[in-house]
Amino acid sequence: MRFGPVTVLAQRLIERKRDGGRVESGEWRALTRAYAAGHVPDYQMAAFLMAAYIRGLDRGETSALTDAMLASGATLDLTHLGVGRVDKHSTGGVGDKVSLVLAPLVASLGVAVPMMSGRGLGHTGGTLDKLESIPGFRTTLTLDEAKRQIERIGCALIGQSAEIAPADRKMYALRDATSTVESIPLIAASIMSKKLAEGLTGLALDVKRGSGAFLPEIERGLELAKVMIELGAGRGCAVVALITAMDRPLGRACGNALEVEEAIHTLRGEGPADVLSVTYALGAEMLVMGGAAPDLEAARRAMEVAISSGKAARKFEGIIEAQGGNPGVVEDPSVLPQAGACELFLAPRPGAVARVEPRTVGRGVTALGGGRTRMEDVVDPSVGFVITAKPGDWVQSGEPLATVFARDRAGIETGLAALRQAIVIADEAELPLPLISHRVTADGVKPFDHD
Amino acid sequence: MRFGPVTVLAQRLIERKRDGGRVESGEWRALTRAYAAGHVPDYQMAAFLMAAYIRGLDRGETSALTDAMLASGATLDLTHLGVGRVDKHSTGGVGDKVSLVLAPLVASLGVAVPMMSGRGLGHTGGTLDKLESIPGFRTTLTLDEAKRQIERIGCALIGQSAEIAPADRKMYALRDATSTVESIPLIAASIMSKKLAEGLTGLALDVKRGSGAFLPEIERGLELAKVMIELGAGRGCAVVALITAMDRPLGRACGNALEVEEAIHTLRGEGPADVLSVTYALGAEMLVMGGAAPDLEAARRAMEVAISSGKAARKFEGIIEAQGGNPGVVEDPSVLPQAGACELFLAPRPGAVARVEPRTVGRGVTALGGGRTRMEDVVDPSVGFVITAKPGDWVQSGEPLATVFARDRAGIETGLAALRQAIVIADEAELPLPLISHRVTADGVKPFDHD
Repeated sequence: MRFGPVTVLAQRLIERKRDGGRVESGEWRALTRAYAAGHVPDYQMAAFLMAAYIRGLDRGETSALTDAMLASGATLDLTHLGVGRVDKHSTGGVGDKVSLVLAPLVASLGVAVPMMSGRGLGHTGGTLDKLESIPGFRTTLTLDEAKRQIERIGCALIGQSAEIAPADRKMYALRDATSTVESIPLIAASIMSKKLAEGLTGLALDVKRGSGAFLPEIERGLELAKVMIELGAGRGCAVVALITAMDRPLGRACGNALEVEEAIHTLRGEGPADVLSVTYALGAEMLVMGGAAPDLEAARRAMEVAISSGKAARKFEGIIEAQGGNPGVVEDPSVLPQAGACELFLAPRPGAVARVEPRTVGRGVTALGGGRTRMEDVVDPSVGFVITAKPGDWVQSGEPLATVFARDRAGIETGLAALRQAIVIADEAELPLPLISHRVTADGVKPFDHD
Repeated sequence: MRFGPVTVLAQRLIERKRDGGRVESGEWRALTRAYAAGHVPDYQMAAFLMAAYIRGLDRGETSALTDAMLASGATLDLTHLGVGRVDKHSTGGVGDKVSLVLAPLVASLGVAVPMMSGRGLGHTGGTLDKLESIPGFRTTLTLDEAKRQIERIGCALIGQSAEIAPADRKMYALRDATSTVESIPLIAASIMSKKLAEGLTGLALDVKRGSGAFLPEIERGLELAKVMIELGAGRGCAVVALITAMDRPLGRACGNALEVEEAIHTLRGEGPADVLSVTYALGAEMLVMGGAAPDLEAARRAMEVAISSGKAARKFEGIIEAQGGNPGVVEDPSVLPQAGACELFLAPRPGAVARVEPRTVGRGVTALGGGRTRMEDVVDPSVGFVITAKPGDWVQSGEPLATVFARDRAGIETGLAALRQAIVIADEAELPLPLISHRVTADGVKPFDHD
């Protein structure tokens, strides 16, 4: 181990955080910059992050880390457009294709949507993987390409480019390898540094709760929402969070191309009710924050019109075309990659659907080849499930509950086995979580006001 | 970051320790082996060690880690000698040259002393650096060379070779760079894995306390002693610990060659009283544990005879000769490297010597070029201090309190400045810590019984 002046600084900060002390703003900036530049080795940063994970960061520290990571890269300046700039972030779930619907829908109503998404990992899917199941669709735009596209059509759907918050990128990969991901201040700083780099004026946050959520307990989800709202408030970016259910998959389709197809149906007004409800709730927040609607009720009516008129679907075609994809997919989703084999899953007994376990479904998609256990895995876009049974449904023995889409016969068996585990039928129904339970703003937490 | 099966294991263990859980014996072994082999990257081990530092290890975990590090390397088998095999370990202090006296003294009385020491770092000196100030002395024996030397003359004074506990070696370097050193279970496992590799039947532990100690509070020193006693007890190695004072330097000389000279004086019965007291106390424990004396009193009388008869001094000559050094140093210490300049430090005012601050003295030696701030620093053996003033002495203005030994005039100024800070003269004396305050054995902690 060699010691330079920067590693001595790192060591002092490790020691302080280890003992529960506070790291000052200038120190966060120096540490982050030195780490991004490769002057602080991974092993020192790993020790620091573990100390930060266990001891925690106060609000000022979280804020300083956010700024430091933001300052490590470029930002998207769209102020000249003169319209609100909004995005959505979800803490991740199974079957969550809401981004695919929201982005074109909200952009079709006159706000700019510079949407930056991630890839699937573990049991959850990722918007980039879903988009890439559209033949030709390119998510690796440069910041400059994204800017020009947003100027032209109001929306771009991109990944975290190397230009944006490179310190966060490097630190996130290290956290992933050292079990220091699930820390609320570290998560909040990571998300907000990227969202602020997009130059947002508003962010709708979808905090999942329940067995399939990243933070299953609502208390931790609410804490994350509060920290992110505070981080945004100091930086001209309003944040509103909705707490939504992830004790079952959202919608019916789970799997990349299958979810794109369901998103297209939803854009046409034919999607499952739960997908549409979450889309409208988040979209209304985005439109109000973006200044395109006076209130949530007006925003919802505008979205209904955008869907029924075909305006939202046409916006999606425009985005797909701009990013090199085949826009014909919106008219005819059968141009999406198709699975080699499919088979129905039938209810093994009569009773009530007690649970549809999202983690088991998500892992089932991965087992079919449609997800990742490692970042370098290649994803098969065609495979997955369409699960029509919902918790609370009463079913007959032999009644179709789902369809497995697989590469081949062996995949079908894998998929059926996953569903046998995931779909629990019992004599009594269990009470599922409310789809949207709370709304969190700078004013506090309120029960969500269903219309 | 890449993921192999071993890094997945590492990640599971990081996560468990992070959340305050327990790592099982087989897991400690697998993790340690994989880390030593380079299959677990430093950044994962750094995160794990920080979690272990903060969450702690229980006794069973500390024991499993000790075994795992021990098993990572070779061991010294000296059972065929049919005598006790003893060593001493000190938690480190300033002016502590006791090892140099103890090893030949105890070996001259018929027990085997496979003594493994370290180098100085920070404010504390190291036995290896001191020995290497003897012209020609070689501390880098292979385990096989050490074994043959012990068979022949009963003692070898060596460093931690690459053969012994390589996992500990690698882990210690990482802990040093990531502020995870001062953890009692990690310290205990590190020391005991090396001591057990020497094949000891007994270990005398010198736990320093006071401002110059590594663990200044006696409570933490006692805890370390207890953990080490337990680790030894399960493995045929008796451990006895003495708690000794490090609120002032031990003896008068501080600096490598100066300390060798003082050690030689002590071996001849002419050393400072405190050095002799600590030597006798630790040596008596070693002789009793080694089966060379029936009780502590008999052991002490045997040591007095070995010193007065010149037997102990001759044993030191034998060891020096066997390890390539000039044995003439015992008769004539002036063959040691001599400083280019020296000057007296005079009392700036009359009063009582309230304190002689060991950390300031130790840093002063380093400032003169006689210590290390980094492991790769080269040490000047000739420089240092001889401090004759002791806390509690009443002194006149202008009375000589110490001598500075330096490379040149600039060094003299550096040394005088250090002493002005280190030696505090006040109107009232302060009560120094008792030289040896407690004796800790498997039976518990008792006040030390001064004779």
